[in-house]
Amino acid sequence: MTTFGIGVDLGGTNLRIAAIDEEAQLLEKITLGSKASRKRDDVIDAMCVAIQTLAKKYSRHGKLAGIGVGVAGIIDLRSGMVRGSPNLPGWIDYPVRAEIEHRLKTAVILENDANVAALGEKWLGAGRDYEDMAMIALGTGVGGALVLNGRIWHGMNGMAGEFGHATVEPEGPPCKCGNRGCLEQYASATAIVRIAREAISSGRGGALNKAAKSDGGLHAQAVYDLAIQGDPEAQKIFRQVGRALGIALASMVNALNLPIYVVGGGVSSAWELFAPSIFEELKRRSMVYAATAPARPMNRRSGASARVKPSPAARKTIIMRAVLGSDAGLFGAARLPMMPQ
Amino acid sequence: MTTFGIGVDLGGTNLRIAAIDEEAQLLEKITLGSKASRKRDDVIDAMCVAIQTLAKKYSRHGKLAGIGVGVAGIIDLRSGMVRGSPNLPGWIDYPVRAEIEHRLKTAVILENDANVAALGEKWLGAGRDYEDMAMIALGTGVGGALVLNGRIWHGMNGMAGEFGHATVEPEGPPCKCGNRGCLEQYASATAIVRIAREAISSGRGGALNKAAKSDGGLHAQAVYDLAIQGDPEAQKIFRQVGRALGIALASMVNALNLPIYVVGGGVSSAWELFAPSIFEELKRRSMVYAATAPARPMNRRSGASARVKPSPAARKTIIMRAVLGSDAGLFGAARLPMMPQ
Repeated sequence: MTTFGIGVDLGGTNLRIAAIDEEAQLLEKITLGSKASRKRDDVIDAMCVAIQTLAKKYSRHGKLAGIGVGVAGIIDLRSGMVRGSPNLPGWIDYPVRAEIEHRLKTAVILENDANVAALGEKWLGAGRDYEDMAMIALGTGVGGALVLNGRIWHGMNGMAGEFGHATVEPEGPPCKCGNRGCLEQYASATAIVRIAREAISSGRGGALNKAAKSDGGLHAQAVYDLAIQGDPEAQKIFRQVGRALGIALASMVNALNLPIYVVGGGVSSAWELFAPSIFEELKRRSMVYAATAPARPMNRRSGASARVKPSPAARKTIIMRAVLGSDAGLFGAARLPMMPQ
Repeated sequence: MTTFGIGVDLGGTNLRIAAIDEEAQLLEKITLGSKASRKRDDVIDAMCVAIQTLAKKYSRHGKLAGIGVGVAGIIDLRSGMVRGSPNLPGWIDYPVRAEIEHRLKTAVILENDANVAALGEKWLGAGRDYEDMAMIALGTGVGGALVLNGRIWHGMNGMAGEFGHATVEPEGPPCKCGNRGCLEQYASATAIVRIAREAISSGRGGALNKAAKSDGGLHAQAVYDLAIQGDPEAQKIFRQVGRALGIALASMVNALNLPIYVVGGGVSSAWELFAPSIFEELKRRSMVYAATAPARPMNRRSGASARVKPSPAARKTIIMRAVLGSDAGLFGAARLPMMPQ
């Protein structure tokens, strides 16, 4: 008899619940797309019903190890409360763990969404051959996670891994966090749109102008589409993304000397457009990377099923994109209760 | 019967050997000031004679746990070789560990100088109440070390902790490492002199001009003396030191969420001059620091014997200067063989 975990990925627009066994087999995934726009209590109710349904349905398949919940926000691990969340504003200071546990009458493990995504990549994706890795997740904002000795490094208050707020340009654009020139101001989907708008305002918009006037308005995807079609201004934006990532990664490589740094999140689908600039900056800016760089940067495009086997014996620094896509967090959340606590 | 360790601190100008017991009692310290300017083999010979003298002399006092050697350079921990060292240029690619072990006919533990200094501070100094800490050492260059779970975090090749080469200003002054705008270009003794010379060249030198024309030439100490006497241009230089440290520390605090960050090295004696700028930048640039800042920054001046008892229960981020001074590395090196390997 096998063991399985139930993972929950609570994002700003989607609520997904999955039963995944210890062999990483997805038993079933429930996506409650629209439910997350409902009231907070209704979302928790729907989540708990789905968890109970899966728990019951697969009880004959194996032993339920537990429930892991990844939440898009800053989590206070001791109190089990959401302390900050741009995407779940109504959830701040809400005792989400206690509410779930009250309904289910069992303990759940709460975790930040970037942390569960990193655990997913560590278990089955880019990081599976390594005990230590960092992950930078490029989405609406820029999140991050640190895995050391196979486990999430939470730091003293569970706030470690905020790579998105590393200063890239000390006097750069202001960030919601209070700093200026954060990585998030250059490498998030929001930043891509902002930089595109700046290009338009300054008369360098070109094809971006047309995209901005389309029905849907200007989105990072439209900038990507233009860049991939060869538009020089759109391509320049992605070079700026890569430059900022390279500057931030260079300092991380010098400080941590990890074997692998994984770039995930929605914006990482534009990897081919920004990765060359990452490697350019890294070679120049990181003595540790230069001393441990692979002969050829690993930047191939690969799906979750692709085998990734950089030899740990080579002791080279690997910078690569995530391989699990949007399911990383779901797999990581289900993995949580299977790990020794 | 107690246990004692022999610690060696091999720097560019001094070679120091000490016997220190498990209660942190200094049994004896031998300083071979001039010997380090001798030939490499003579230095190793003198080091080994001193180690054997101490080992024999204190064999009745306790059991010798082993020998730890801190070397000012980048150490390849697997081969026991010095891979890079601005201060010990003749030692590069020299099998220092093998040579010592050959003479002593026993194993020694080799470590980077910033790492042994951090271990010293962790054992007896600023970090003694914490299992996790980072140290930034401001000297001729800027070194660093990371202690996680009570042990040095070496990273994959023993190159972790290079905080001195974090990018502070992407297009700042060029650094020997190949990058531009490294922390080392703003916060080292070398940088203080460079910035002072720039002020002189641009006609803003004032009192610095006179210091530069003195017999000894311009040193960081002279800039410090002027700043402490109220010279505005010299004070501005130390504010720049603090700003750069604050920018680098803010990213570290966001990434690692450690309980304590310790600033050591010779330049840290100017703490009062640059610390206010560190805290100013941290408050602005680190969301994690802002959420976990102590009510009053800890910046008191204290000797090795001062009791430092910030409560771990408070879970506040502490940024403070080192307390052991130049003996930190010697204590840390002697501590190495007493730790479980």
